[in-house]
Formats: sequence, structure tokens, C-alpha cells
Amino acid sequence: MSSTWGKNIKISLFGESHGEAVGVVIDGLPAGVELDYDFIREEMKRRAPGRSSISTPRKEDDEVNIISGVFNGRTTGTPLCCVIKNKNKISKDYEKIRYVLRPGHADYTGYIKYRGYNDYRGGGHFSGRLTAPLVFAGAVAKIILSKKNIFIGAHIKSIKNIQDLGFDFCNVDEGTLIKLRQMDFPVLNDCIEDEMKRVIKEAKEDGDSVGGVIEVAVINVEEGLGSPFFDSIESRLSHLLFSIPAVKGVEFGEGFNITNMLGSDANDEFYIENGKIKTRTNYNGGILGGISNGMPIIFRVAIKPTPSILKRQKTVNISLMEEVELQVEGRHDACIVPRAVPVVEAVTSIGILDMLIEREGYSWIK
Amino acid sequence: MSSTWGKNIKISLFGESHGEAVGVVIDGLPAGVELDYDFIREEMKRRAPGRSSISTPRKEDDEVNIISGVFNGRTTGTPLCCVIKNKNKISKDYEKIRYVLRPGHADYTGYIKYRGYNDYRGGGHFSGRLTAPLVFAGAVAKIILSKKNIFIGAHIKSIKNIQDLGFDFCNVDEGTLIKLRQMDFPVLNDCIEDEMKRVIKEAKEDGDSVGGVIEVAVINVEEGLGSPFFDSIESRLSHLLFSIPAVKGVEFGEGFNITNMLGSDANDEFYIENGKIKTRTNYNGGILGGISNGMPIIFRVAIKPTPSILKRQKTVNISLMEEVELQVEGRHDACIVPRAVPVVEAVTSIGILDMLIEREGYSWIK
Amino acid sequence: MSSTWGKNIKISLFGESHGEAVGVVIDGLPAGVELDYDFIREEMKRRAPGRSSISTPRKEDDEVNIISGVFNGRTTGTPLCCVIKNKNKISKDYEKIRYVLRPGHADYTGYIKYRGYNDYRGGGHFSGRLTAPLVFAGAVAKIILSKKNIFIGAHIKSIKNIQDLGFDFCNVDEGTLIKLRQMDFPVLNDCIEDEMKRVIKEAKEDGDSVGGVIEVAVINVEEGLGSPFFDSIESRLSHLLFSIPAVKGVEFGEGFNITNMLGSDANDEFYIENGKIKTRTNYNGGILGGISNGMPIIFRVAIKPTPSILKRQKTVNISLMEEVELQVEGRHDACIVPRAVPVVEAVTSIGILDMLIEREGYSWIK
Amino acid sequence: MSSTWGKNIKISLFGESHGEAVGVVIDGLPAGVELDYDFIREEMKRRAPGRSSISTPRKEDDEVNIISGVFNGRTTGTPLCCVIKNKNKISKDYEKIRYVLRPGHADYTGYIKYRGYNDYRGGGHFSGRLTAPLVFAGAVAKIILSKKNIFIGAHIKSIKNIQDLGFDFCNVDEGTLIKLRQMDFPVLNDCIEDEMKRVIKEAKEDGDSVGGVIEVAVINVEEGLGSPFFDSIESRLSHLLFSIPAVKGVEFGEGFNITNMLGSDANDEFYIENGKIKTRTNYNGGILGGISNGMPIIFRVAIKPTPSILKRQKTVNISLMEEVELQVEGRHDACIVPRAVPVVEAVTSIGILDMLIEREGYSWIK
Repeated sequence: MSSTWGKNIKISLFGESHGEAVGVVIDGLPAGVELDYDFIREEMKRRAPGRSSISTPRKEDDEVNIISGVFNGRTTGTPLCCVIKNKNKISKDYEKIRYVLRPGHADYTGYIKYRGYNDYRGGGHFSGRLTAPLVFAGAVAKIILSKKNIFIGAHIKSIKNIQDLGFDFCNVDEGTLIKLRQMDFPVLNDCIEDEMKRVIKEAKEDGDSVGGVIEVAVINVEEGLGSPFFDSIESRLSHLLFSIPAVKGVEFGEGFNITNMLGSDANDEFYIENGKIKTRTNYNGGILGGISNGMPIIFRVAIKPTPSILKRQKTVNISLMEEVELQVEGRHDACIVPRAVPVVEAVTSIGILDMLIEREGYSWIK
Repeated sequence: MSSTWGKNIKISLFGESHGEAVGVVIDGLPAGVELDYDFIREEMKRRAPGRSSISTPRKEDDEVNIISGVFNGRTTGTPLCCVIKNKNKISKDYEKIRYVLRPGHADYTGYIKYRGYNDYRGGGHFSGRLTAPLVFAGAVAKIILSKKNIFIGAHIKSIKNIQDLGFDFCNVDEGTLIKLRQMDFPVLNDCIEDEMKRVIKEAKEDGDSVGGVIEVAVINVEEGLGSPFFDSIESRLSHLLFSIPAVKGVEFGEGFNITNMLGSDANDEFYIENGKIKTRTNYNGGILGGISNGMPIIFRVAIKPTPSILKRQKTVNISLMEEVELQVEGRHDACIVPRAVPVVEAVTSIGILDMLIEREGYSWIK
Repeated sequence: MSSTWGKNIKISLFGESHGEAVGVVIDGLPAGVELDYDFIREEMKRRAPGRSSISTPRKEDDEVNIISGVFNGRTTGTPLCCVIKNKNKISKDYEKIRYVLRPGHADYTGYIKYRGYNDYRGGGHFSGRLTAPLVFAGAVAKIILSKKNIFIGAHIKSIKNIQDLGFDFCNVDEGTLIKLRQMDFPVLNDCIEDEMKRVIKEAKEDGDSVGGVIEVAVINVEEGLGSPFFDSIESRLSHLLFSIPAVKGVEFGEGFNITNMLGSDANDEFYIENGKIKTRTNYNGGILGGISNGMPIIFRVAIKPTPSILKRQKTVNISLMEEVELQVEGRHDACIVPRAVPVVEAVTSIGILDMLIEREGYSWIK
Repeated sequence: MSSTWGKNIKISLFGESHGEAVGVVIDGLPAGVELDYDFIREEMKRRAPGRSSISTPRKEDDEVNIISGVFNGRTTGTPLCCVIKNKNKISKDYEKIRYVLRPGHADYTGYIKYRGYNDYRGGGHFSGRLTAPLVFAGAVAKIILSKKNIFIGAHIKSIKNIQDLGFDFCNVDEGTLIKLRQMDFPVLNDCIEDEMKRVIKEAKEDGDSVGGVIEVAVINVEEGLGSPFFDSIESRLSHLLFSIPAVKGVEFGEGFNITNMLGSDANDEFYIENGKIKTRTNYNGGILGGISNGMPIIFRVAIKPTPSILKRQKTVNISLMEEVELQVEGRHDACIVPRAVPVVEAVTSIGILDMLIEREGYSWIK
């Protein structure tokens, strides 16, 4: 099984890039939650391509069609199915390279796993296109989490070697996250945007691509969420984050850099502020023993350069079993990091909601 | 739920650091597998403390007691329960600091989640002690995987800022992994061992601690293992890896560094060698679209400095709700990275076995 | 969570009776299975209403729309989503009785669980309408099972007090099951059909309803399928069978009647026939210790009289919290047993396939 | 996988009849629940053999050893592991019939599934002995449920053809259930006890065995527990009930008999009593659409005659593949129904608790 996840919330992804539609079934949602369609539309827009010079010209107005689970504008508590039709797909692009394995893509592994029966057009079920229903599910999760005042936000921490500032681990305010949501190209240091875009443009002009790092903050999560071992927040979130195509690394708090610190520095000391226990630093990213400690939950996700490039590449034709050269044509992002930001937020929202319902059940929803 | 994991293999961890015992139930094992007790004992030894000047003097001979699931030396196919008694525990160490939250530990979050009812002694269920049954389960998994010629090995990639060499992503041979297994302090570059140990000793003498990075290789995994999205190899393994106490980061292949590369470099080009499709580079760590491509599976895990230090630290007494100073006494590792190596290998073995059985079922076992 | 099931095959049901559509996502199907659309259509027809004088005049041509997971007529191995549009629904029927709880229906319990937010029209997600996608999923499962020569069939064992013959527990041949599949009103004793229909007609004329018992046989299941305890065949199948609306009882082999036997009679004695171990009787229904023994798997399912009757009934208006009388109008089956037969077969097929894949994995599919 | 169950509560059974011990790990328990050891001991006694002339002389004082998850007499919220040592086992009884398949037992199916590697002594993991840890887990669940005032009780509805009275479906009071708990041989009609015991004795004297039916009531379950379809109360409970060895049938409310009723009779009419909605009858057993309606939850379970009889039986020696005669010796119950009563209650308690936590989470526990 591949595309079903969750314990309290179950999401079941379906669809192929060039099939009739993509979509998701969300089971286990609380009943009576009013869905803010404008918000959902905005979230979908954030992921949709064709919005700027730096993303693929493939125009998708990801029109969401909710065919179950909503009645009079509110969730019914029964499974919500959302279908997003695939428009404007040009399949013939792919026919001619059917058996030619695109390096960096899942063409080879998909061919082997599914014994050649998978839909190879545009990556089929492996396509980034499948992140559209994920963003939808995340939008629904965000609406529910907002009732507990929980907010999820993210920014582009780096594009290739160009670095943005980082979050203040101890103090991320809602305003910052909302401001980031509204940016096409969310960064903390506005001055860095042009430089990042330049790097992307250069890659694009070379028919090449670049990747980057996304940094996420989740605020107002009460202490006590999560579990030790297999249901640690890190385990649950990383499971979802590594399900996003192109993610190759996940780190919490200081992450890999914490290995350069001494324990006496890395240990976040506790203190009391207005009768609440806090930590003076937050190198552990708001999580100790797999459980939230009330500080912002902070993590970073590494997105590899999109494997779709226009440069000539050496590869193999798997049906002829011979080495060939491949020059992909068509429409591609030179960098998917900006569009990956809402996707990363989405799966985070789903994961946090799942853990919240595990602890609180359904009775807290008003 | 916290301590139960798995789809085809189910492992259920139990126990507290200073309780009667720790252990694990493994359900879903194939029947008829002969257990090599010497091998299991060696694996347990690799994790056990007190083996060298750099690890805690707490002497544990982690004597494994298998109380079910094995008959005449072979697995029965029914649940295998292994119990490891807790000996030589000094609980009074902890009584006096019962309400004093140790920075970097799960004292605070555990107290909140379990509303003060958890066993606080030595971290209770959060203790690294729980990794002993994990290593046992991993040893059993390794024995079964060896029947498919699959080997898992790891080395210390870094201690603080001291770096070992890295694996050759394209070519990790079984001999190297076996050699590493036999080393107390597994590194690829022998010259680096002393330097690393020096850094650890220095930290120890200061009553401080250091962390590091572990690099893992899994070889001879056939192409086609894993799934897209939620059952990607990265998702399944990271879920388990982040369940190990002190892990703060996981990256596959080039990981975070891949974000500094161009797509044309990061795309591992395919070629044919002796009728087999391979990649010339392996920046993706043997995984494309969440599925193995037949190349070595490579990843790294960040281990934070052990939070147990002897230095004076500022913290809070949660029962009095007042800020206090804490000076922990007792026996601690200044660096748990060497002992974490077999634990990281263990959960990796469990994860790979789970995916293998998902694809192959139980019929392949001879 | 309510509508997601499965370990190796995951099915996720969605939709409401009077919403836009009902459907199902099936995840975990093997790749490359050619779908026989004629067979699927026939299966759907077997459940569809409006086929005979004894079923509701609501005409549904349950047109199945597969929007993912199938490519060039074969399963891709990625999630298969099937959507069935709701046509010809008359919602105003329900408006006027929105708050009037229909006895025997889920109006009250659904109202409480979903706090009044569920779609009350026609039972919403509780509707028998949701069994249409189940039959679809079952048809797909049957196609795959047929590759292992496994057949599932059923007949109407009784309508009210009118009894059909029973299966010969030790010897159910494929021909019998295929013959039953082709009957509108599947019974073993043809002479009984008219009597049963008479009982149904009488109830219909009185604006009343009747129920009955369905007997199922699964043949050619190899010995060794299933598990002790929580994954026993009885546990897995009963879980699915009791998910069908109106099912109130499930019994395997002799079922409740076995309690009237002596152990010496109930124990099915073993013997050898053409080098194969068989039992001379099959009172245990082909299952011992939760595992198949190679004999036909036999069980019966009790279907209650459909709660939708036209008779005047005493009940409560939950919004006014006052006792009222209810006289339902509209279109209803006086007996859903005939239409429940393919539904019972469907969930059985899904359950058997899930267990088969657990044991065999995916590699056996050719 | 066979012996792990649960969504919110996970139970993992382990052990073999003649191995070192049997036991269970319970994960997902709320923290801070005080365990009443006397109550637990009493529950264990209710299942233990050797208490009366009608049960096997094998004396087990099922001494429960809790080795994790309890601290200072209260649950910690981390996994609770309970081990019950196997004493007084006489293995040589079984050696001589190792390959001789006992009719009605799992010898054959277990041999096939585990390819001859399972522990055949006394049924190994298939043994009724495994119900001891189930009763322990059920006792813990009962203690927690009692905090919501939920009580589970059961009586022997029949032994062979001797019938006890049935519960009053609409009105089962706590007193009755408590009284039944205290009876060695729980029946509602005291006069029937002797007759039932006579039937059992007769069977025993013939070296034969008998079965019976157990009727269960769960009271004070609030309306709204459970879900439609795959998490219906019927699905969840039947899944657990059919995991108990020897159970061949499960029916809710009127069960199979409801098929003899007209819809107008079977529909439980609603009325209002003290501002609460109730039903005048309870033929549906307190469950509509898979969800509790606030009335007592009523169901019955069919227990087959214990397959262990002393009579000469025809069977097969699977190693020689030849037909043989078998005459089992040793100690056996002529009727396990009385000892099955607490087991049926136990799994019911576990199932209800799992559903309760799904709805309420962990926050309700005080």
C-alpha cells in the first residue's frame, strides 16, 4: 500500500498526472466544521503552477470538487472526497519517451514495482500533481487546527547556496506566518528574494534546475502532544514529509547542526514566565522525547533540484535495454521549492491534526 | 499509542529504565527461521554500556530471555516475546530530583503527557535503555534479511566537528560492513578514531557531552521495494529512525547537501552493467519515488549530545513551580553515538524486513 | 474513523445517498490485472434496485466511473478510485421528516454522533446506497481471486420463515456458484422461490418488510490462510460482514447450531483423499484455529427486515423533543435480502483477497 | 500478523501453552488509573481451571506479573506488560501424538501455516491458555470503563439444548451483572444450573464434550459510540469475539431471530422518558447504523463443544500421511462455556474502551 495514511484522520490519495483526475478521501474529520472556501482556494493557488515566470507554464486552475462529506457548507463527519480534474494535459509529450528512463525520476523504480503496468505519462501517480489534493487536505486540517489557535507557516530557507534568515526558534508570532502565507515567494529577508530568483532563472536558462530548503514553524501547540518512540512528533511528521516527492532530508530544531554543539549548549534550559514553563533556547525544536513542550515546533525540509531538466542526459531505454541519450522537452519548473512550501505546510497540518485528535478525541470540536 | 509499530511485522516495546524489565513482542515473523544466538548476543553487546572508557560505567549484561515464539531454536511464526531484566539500577539517584526537570530530557513533556503518573526514574519508558529490545528485534530481522543476502551496516560519520570519510555511495561491499560490525568504534578512516575519542574524553572531563552523525548503508536490496508517498522507503525508515531517542535529523543520499547541486548533477544517470541497470552516481541514496533502485540505500542520522551532563544547569522544579539549579550526579555517557550505531542498524533492519514481507509475503522463506 | 478498512488492501468508502456521488478508493491492488468490465457491470446489476417487482422502483443504473488506477484496461497498482454518480434522487421526500427519527434507521445515532451535521437525506452516508461501491470493489477482488481459482458464491437461505436448502458443506462445486450468480433470486431449491417472493409481496402490500438469511461459500482457498486470534478468518470476515447495513448475525459452519452437538459429532474427522488431507464433515465451516483447512469456507449472515416501512410508527421529533407519529412515503424495498447477496459476496471477496496478499505478497500475480 | 489488535488501545498477545509463559502488552492506556489488584485477581480466577468438578483438573493459579506500565499502583500511560508463567505443564502428553491431527483443533491448519515449526504442545499459541492474558487486559479495561459507569456482564444462555432465561433487552441493571460476576456458573434462572451441569457431567462421563451460548450485556454506554461501516460496534466487537478460540457465531439484539420478524415489529420505536430518548423494544441490541443508541448493548456468542474429547477418533498422521485412530488422554474440560464467560466479557471491555478513547481521547480520564 502506498497512498493511505493516518490513525485518527485517514487520508487516501488517488490519481495520475495524465489520468482523468487526482483527489483524496479524508476520513475521520470532526463534524460541523464550516469550510472557508476562499481560504481553501487561496491555499490551492499557492501550490498551483503558472503563477510566475519561474514556474512551469502548464496552467492548472486546480478546481476542487467536493463530492461527499460536506453538507450545507460544513463537514458531516463522514468521509470527505475531493476530486480535481486534470485539464490541459499533453500526453503525447510522453509517448515517445515511454521506455526512456528519466534520471532522478521514478520511471525506473515505478516500472519495476508495477511491472510496467503503471501509467508512465507525466510520472503517473508519482507526479507532483498529487500534491494538489494534499494541499486541499491540509487546508481543511488548518481550518480545524485554527479552532485550537494552532498555526502552521513556512518560508524558503535557501535556494541552492542563497540563504534566507531563519525563524527565531523561541518566538514565532502569528503575524509573521500570516505574512508569509500571502507571499508568492515567502522569505523572511525581503532583500534575498531577487537573488534567489536570479539563481532559479539562471538554472532555467541553462535548461537546468535547483533545489532548496524549507523551514517550518508550528505555533500554539500545547505541551504534551505526541508520544515517545514510534508516535513521536518527529516520527509522525517525518513520515509525512518524506512522502512529498523530492524531499531528501528532514531535521528538527538545530537538526544536523546540533551535532556540533556541546550538551551544555544544546540542552534548552527551563524557566518560568507568567506561570508558564518555557525554555530559554529551542535547539530541540519544541520537541523533547517525541512530545511537544509548548515552544514553537521548528523543522527544515530539503527539496532536491527538480529532476525535470532540458539538458541532454545519458540514460537507458528499458524496453530495448540499451543506453540512450535523452533530451526532455515540455514544460517544467526550474525550481519547485516555492510551490513545495504549501505542500510541506499541508502535510504538517494533517499530521498535527491526527495527533491532536488522538489526544482529544472528537468532543472538543465546538 | 506510542510504542507499537509496523504493518507486516509488528513490534511492541515495553518497559521502564528502573522497572522490572524492558522487552519487546515481535509479531508477524516468518516461521522456521533458525536464530543464531551468538549473533544476537554480539549485537546486544555492541549496544551495551560499560564496554569502554568512554561509555557509562553502569554495567548491563543485557541477558535476553525469549519467553515465546521460538521452539527448538527456530521461530514458530507466532509472537516472539523477549524480556531483558533490569539489573544494577540505582533508583535513589533519581528520587531527590524527582520534580526537577532535566534540560534536554523528556522529564517535562512526559510529566505533562502522563499527568505526573509516568515512572520518572532514569527517564522511565523514555530511557535509552529501551533501545536494548530494539537491538534484539533488529538482530532477528538481520538474520532473516541475510537469507535475501541483504546487509545493513553503519559507521560514525562524525563526532562533533571531527569527520570520518563517507561511504562510496555506488559501491559498498559486504566486507566493509562486516568489518565495521566488529569494531567497538566503527569508522572508515582508522586514523580518525583517536581524534574522535579525544573530543569525547574532553567533553567527559568537563562533565559535558557531544553528539555526532551516523551513516548507514543497506546493500543487496532488490529494485522495486517500497512505495510512492506514505510508504516510501524514506517515510518508513525515517519514522523508525526518529523514534530513537536523541535523533534530530535524517537525510538520504546527499540529503541537505543535494540542495546545493544543480539538477544536471543531482540526477543519477542510468547505464547498463552486465545486463543490469545501474546509476553512475547515487546522490539519491538508492531511492527514487520512494522505491529502491537496486543501488546501496544510504542515509545519515543526527544524534544530539546526550542531555545527561554533570554541569550545573538552570531549570524548574515543576511541583514547586520555581526556578532552581540542577547538578545531576551519577553515571552517564559523554557521547552515545557509538552505542547508537547498532540501534540505528536495528530499526533499519526492522523497517526493511517489514517492506520486504509486504512485497513477498511469507512464502519466500525457506 | 468509519469507512476505511484493510491491511494489505485498503478500501476507503465515501459518499451520501443524496449527495453528488458515492464511491470507493482501493489501494494496494496488484498491478497488471485486466479488468473484465462486463463482469463488473453484471455484478453492479445484481445489486441495483428496480430490477424486479419486489425491489424499490428507484431506478439506478449504477454507472461506474473509474477515475484512477487503471491504464489500458489493467490495474496500475496505484490507488483505484471509482465514482458512482447519484441520479434520480428525490430529496424533498426527506426534508419534511428531517427531525423525525425513523425507527430502525440510524437517524438518531447519526444525529448524536455527528451532532446534527450529517446529511440526513436518505440516510446520508448510512444509506444502503454505499453498498454499490462495495460491490464494485468486490468485483475487482473476485477478478483477482479467480487467478487463484478462488470462487465466492451465495444463496438466499431463508426469507422470514421460508427456508431454502443449505450448501453441502463438504462439496460445493464451482458450477453451483456460477449458476447462483446468474439468478435474480438465488436459491438452491427452485421450488422455494415463489413462496419466498409471496412472503415478500405480502409484506409489501401491508407496507411492511421482511428479512432473511444469506449463506455463503468460498471454494478453492488453500489450507493455511488466516491466523489465530485477531486475524482469524472469522474475525476478518465478520468485521466486514457486520459493516453491511442491516446485518445482525454472522455464523460459520454449523454456527449457533453447533452448540447443540456433542464434541464427538462436531469434530470434523480427517482422512486422506488422493494424497490430500480432508475432513469427512465440515461443521467448522472450513476454518480451524482461525485458519483455512482447505474445505469450503461456509457461513451465514442474518439480514434484518428493512426498517423502511410505510406503516404508521410511533417515534420522536428530536428538534422539538416530542413524541410524534411517522408515516414514511416514497420508494422502498420490502426485502433487501436478494440485493444484499452480491454485497455479502463482495465484502467476502475483499476480505479473502486481503488475507491472500498478506500471505503471498504481490509477487504471485502473473 | 495474528496476535496484535487495536486502534487506540493496542493489545499484543504472546505465548504458548507449554512454553515459558503467556502474556500481553497493552499500549495506549490512559495514565493514572489505579489498578484494583483484588478485582484483577478475581477476574483471573473466574477463567482459571480446576475450580469445579466440571473443569479440567489442570491447576493453574494464574499469577499475574506486571513487569511494566504500572508505577505506585497506577498506570503510567506507557505500555503495560503482563506475564503469566506456565506452571504444571505435562509436555510428554503431547510428544507421542505430535503428528497426529486432533480433529476440531488447529493442529492441521497450524502445521500448514507455520510449516511444522509451531509449538505443537497443547496447541501452542492456539491454546485456550492464551485467554488468560486476555482476561487480564479485560480486567484493566473494565476498571477504566467503570469510571464512565460502563458495566459489562454475561450469563450462560444455554448449554447444549438447555436454555437459561434471556436478558431483558430494555432493562439490564448493574445489580444483575454484578451478581452474575460472582457466580461460578452464571445463569439468570437459578433452577437451570443443575440441569446444565448434569448435561456437562454426562458428556464428561462419556469422554465427550458440549458447548453453549453466552449472552452479554453492556450498560450505560452513551449514545453515539461507534461508527457506520467498518468501525461499527458490531464490526469491532465481532472481530474480537471471533478471535476467541471455539467461537463460531455472534449475533446482536434478536440476531438471527430478527429474520423471522416483520419490519413493523423489528423497528424499535422511539419515545421520551425523563427528557431522554429511548426505544420501547431493543431488538437491535442497542446499536443502530453501527452506533450505540443508549440502550443496553446485547449480543450472544456461540461456543462450540471443546474439541478435546477422550473418545476414539479417526484422523491422520501428517508426517506419515496415513489415516490413524486417535485416543487423546489427559485433562480436559467437557465444557468450556463457564470459563469462556469472563473471556467474552474481557474482549468486549477492550473493544468498548478502544471505541471510547477514539471518541473521547485521553483528556476525560481524571
